[in-house]
Amino acid sequence: MSAWLETVKWNADGLVPAIAQETGSGTVLTQAWMNRDALERTAATREAHYWSRSRGRLWRKGEASGHVQRVREIRLDCDHDSILLIVEQSGGIACHTGRHHCFYKRLEEGAWLEVEPVLKDPKTIYGK
Amino acid sequence: MSAWLETVKWNADGLVPAIAQETGSGTVLTQAWMNRDALERTAATREAHYWSRSRGRLWRKGEASGHVQRVREIRLDCDHDSILLIVEQSGGIACHTGRHHCFYKRLEEGAWLEVEPVLKDPKTIYGK
Repeated sequence: MSAWLETVKWNADGLVPAIAQETGSGTVLTQAWMNRDALERTAATREAHYWSRSRGRLWRKGEASGHVQRVREIRLDCDHDSILLIVEQSGGIACHTGRHHCFYKRLEEGAWLEVEPVLKDPKTIYGK
Repeated sequence: MSAWLETVKWNADGLVPAIAQETGSGTVLTQAWMNRDALERTAATREAHYWSRSRGRLWRKGEASGHVQRVREIRLDCDHDSILLIVEQSGGIACHTGRHHCFYKRLEEGAWLEVEPVLKDPKTIYGK
């Protein structure tokens, strides 16, 4: 195991939060989770890999949708328990709902309002 | 308890990751954690509150340093388990190391390099 991977303070489940931010626009696209393997593969391939907690397996972002994240930078925070990726988002769509990014609900007077448009029908993205 | 707080999928410890992004610059400043109380107070006061896992208590960002985060927007992601705050960072310093933000280490050829300057000596910030 490489020393730089050991620097990361993995939680009890062996994971850390990983934020993907789009280069250029600066949009915070997604927050997912990484384990050692995901981070190592991300660094080696320069494509974002995450650990899917729901599916219990490694997941290359965009493997089904084609909406891969090409990684420009990998950043670590001051206390070594959070990762920030600077990425190019292919297709301009990071969210499985077909939106540009996942943070499309905004708190307005005690309710979560959807404030961003669906750019592409998920049925089209996933061929269902 | 308000319905909007119940929409959030709190983890087994009653927490979710909370990302703070600076308005204007778009810089991802910090990734911290919120519990229900922290989110409720953040919404009520429009100042970022987090749950400090190390101190085991609620924490108003900037309570010691003066580097508070005024909250412009509170966003929730598609699967309801991650929060994004759009903030004004007072003092232009979000990190306890005296840097603009916490993600100042960048992976370069298998090592984490510090790539951003200390803007203010932490001893001055915290009066130690």
